Amino acid sequence: MTRPLLLDLYQLTMAQSYFALGMNDCAVFELFVRSLPRNRSFLVAAGLAQALEYLEGLRFGRADIDFLASLDLFSVEFLQCLREFRFTGSVHALPEGTPFFAQEPILRVTAPILEAQLVESRILNSVHFQTVIASKAARCALAAGERQLVDFGLRRAHEADAGFYAARAAYIGGFHATATVEAGQRFGIPLSGTMAHSFIEAQASEGEAFRNFVATYPGAATLLIDTYDTERAARRVADLAHELEQAGSSRRIGAVRIDSGDLGRECRTVRHILDSLGCQDIQIVVSGGLDEQAIGDLVRDAAPIDAFGVGTALDVSADAPALDMAYKLQEYAGKPRRKRSPGKATWPGVKQVYRERGAQSQIVRDEVALAEETAAGEALLVEVMRGGRSVAPAPPLAQIRTHCLQELSALPAQVRQLQEDTGSIPVRISDALRALAAQLDAEVG
Amino acid sequence: MTRPLLLDLYQLTMAQSYFALGMNDCAVFELFVRSLPRNRSFLVAAGLAQALEYLEGLRFGRADIDFLASLDLFSVEFLQCLREFRFTGSVHALPEGTPFFAQEPILRVTAPILEAQLVESRILNSVHFQTVIASKAARCALAAGERQLVDFGLRRAHEADAGFYAARAAYIGGFHATATVEAGQRFGIPLSGTMAHSFIEAQASEGEAFRNFVATYPGAATLLIDTYDTERAARRVADLAHELEQAGSSRRIGAVRIDSGDLGRECRTVRHILDSLGCQDIQIVVSGGLDEQAIGDLVRDAAPIDAFGVGTALDVSADAPALDMAYKLQEYAGKPRRKRSPGKATWPGVKQVYRERGAQSQIVRDEVALAEETAAGEALLVEVMRGGRSVAPAPPLAQIRTHCLQELSALPAQVRQLQEDTGSIPVRISDALRALAAQLDAEVG
Repeated sequence: MTRPLLLDLYQLTMAQSYFALGMNDCAVFELFVRSLPRNRSFLVAAGLAQALEYLEGLRFGRADIDFLASLDLFSVEFLQCLREFRFTGSVHALPEGTPFFAQEPILRVTAPILEAQLVESRILNSVHFQTVIASKAARCALAAGERQLVDFGLRRAHEADAGFYAARAAYIGGFHATATVEAGQRFGIPLSGTMAHSFIEAQASEGEAFRNFVATYPGAATLLIDTYDTERAARRVADLAHELEQAGSSRRIGAVRIDSGDLGRECRTVRHILDSLGCQDIQIVVSGGLDEQAIGDLVRDAAPIDAFGVGTALDVSADAPALDMAYKLQEYAGKPRRKRSPGKATWPGVKQVYRERGAQSQIVRDEVALAEETAAGEALLVEVMRGGRSVAPAPPLAQIRTHCLQELSALPAQVRQLQEDTGSIPVRISDALRALAAQLDAEVG
Repeated sequence: MTRPLLLDLYQLTMAQSYFALGMNDCAVFELFVRSLPRNRSFLVAAGLAQALEYLEGLRFGRADIDFLASLDLFSVEFLQCLREFRFTGSVHALPEGTPFFAQEPILRVTAPILEAQLVESRILNSVHFQTVIASKAARCALAAGERQLVDFGLRRAHEADAGFYAARAAYIGGFHATATVEAGQRFGIPLSGTMAHSFIEAQASEGEAFRNFVATYPGAATLLIDTYDTERAARRVADLAHELEQAGSSRRIGAVRIDSGDLGRECRTVRHILDSLGCQDIQIVVSGGLDEQAIGDLVRDAAPIDAFGVGTALDVSADAPALDMAYKLQEYAGKPRRKRSPGKATWPGVKQVYRERGAQSQIVRDEVALAEETAAGEALLVEVMRGGRSVAPAPPLAQIRTHCLQELSALPAQVRQLQEDTGSIPVRISDALRALAAQLDAEVG
């Protein structure tokens, strides 16, 4: 469902003006991030597949038209135009999972201005969100190294769609699994889950709850051990493991989860208890307020952790919940356009991003140039939609994820650092682009 | 659509355990916020209507069951139980729009444990998000005083549902309108919109763009004046207003919008230009990176502003994008339960929040007590669902908003301040509740 009225009112009033004025020349809009947030040295493009689905499926139904008619803002002729609306334009974009930097167009829409303008709000809404989350997830993945990462964030994500698409974007950024079942159903993302404290509390004792869960869980169960006393619970887990083994049971305890306290200290203590009781194969999962900094600290301290469950900090990208992402007119009727508002001036014209690489494909620098220029390096924006239809099916999600992880490893070491101000990739604005901006400034009276 | 698989996997595996173990006694879960974020001295409850819709409509369809079967995690018997699933419990909750504080239950679910557990993720997801936004919106409303507030945040909200429900929660918290058309369609929230820079840039000149927009806009148009040179644009607007008047046109310019620069200085200059050219009736709308602090600063400086458009900071609640909100088991089979995890211990038992008021209904203090106690003040949690059905239709949104604004004005002055650490309402934990917690700690071995 494309939710056609999920847009800003001004998209419709401007569209009506374009319609009434007969302005139907071709417009080029580009989507980019003005500047990186303080805690980001790179971003990861995501959400393109959803943006394209929206463009392909956008239709205004009868109920939508009736509602718009009730506003007394729109002419009968314009409403008829909306009833027949189809997006007929083309889209160029960075492949999902590609790292990018400030001022680089990551998506370009070329279409009659009414169409290209009308789709602004929702394209931004989709691409912005998944880019926010994929970028945060990639930082967690860099911090976690070889350890497993699971998305636990649905409950604190910003409503249903955010929880759902956060799982997708987190997987692209390097997570291994999600607890969100619908994301498994729709995207094939591996699912993972443990148990809640309530399960323990509802039963006569913690030991009985463990035994009951293992007896009814058809796989290697993960037991939550911090409800009352973590160390005592760890010993109970070991006892139960031996009991199962001695009984020749096929039931197995796969892991324990610790969700509170000083996680570094707790997991060392628990690892020691489990090991000393012969349970070296029981893994340790930690959760509770984790972000990439906390993960990095635990990994640097060589804490004996096999998997991290990351919730809130991931699903709302707590330290950078929004990007300064914009969708701006760069050309209309073949003529470059430029906004000059203080602090928000744009680079005009239809552009391309070129990426130069060094040894081992390491990313060295990017250049934003006019699309008509030839510049050194690989052109990142590729055509993904033509005449309102995707030029190819969306790549499988696992392939997008692999591309992302490859490209993250191609970032220079200092960009992969998670500390502030470790620098980013230099992004050059081409001479021709600078000259065009100056020329337009001189022209506009 | 209730999206039945939008939950955490462990809800289903725990449910299967309860099912297999025959644990179907009544459980009581309560939803509360452990502690207020640094920048919040109060929160505003919102999202209840959506949580109740979810509970009433939750069904597992054939495709859902088929997907779950494909995971090899669930028994045929349990899947049959899911196929027949209906939520049959009761819910008590704070009316939407009510301010609340840390440790106060704002929603209580009483149901067979399988049901009460299964709905955790999605109830949290709905109530958390709208509470985050209504709380942020209320701060903006307190800062803006009599001035109008419009939600512009769809594009940077976290995907579709967040943009949509942010409009609802912002309206509850005191906003006057939204730009998000679907929120007008579904909730009857007043719609408001202006124009984008692209509309100006696409045309031969700014003057022509203004003239064209007014000619095609069926009401009092708002013109965006910061695309190239704000002062010159303000004079153009005045010229156009005179031109329309002299031509005896019914077209009218309602307002100008400034979206960049030093908003305080720009709006003074623009007000001066408009007034000196006889356009006292043209209002000024400002936008661009606004939050309650920026609004408060502009209002304190008596900047001549009629309306604020607030986007990103509102729709992602940038300074506090998540709350430490939890949904915890407090009673099972008639017996109070308590989690003791470090830093995350809960107050056990079925509780009620009592609010004491002073002169002019001002809120003086709250008390969290056992539901069976009688305490001073008004009981805030009221029954909203019984036997799986809402006991009454949801109140009209405008009524919820009025309730919220009344209750905000009943907060003591220092709580309505927007500075950090100005204190909150004292929340007392009743003696009986403390005694119960101590008793349970002594019991649990």
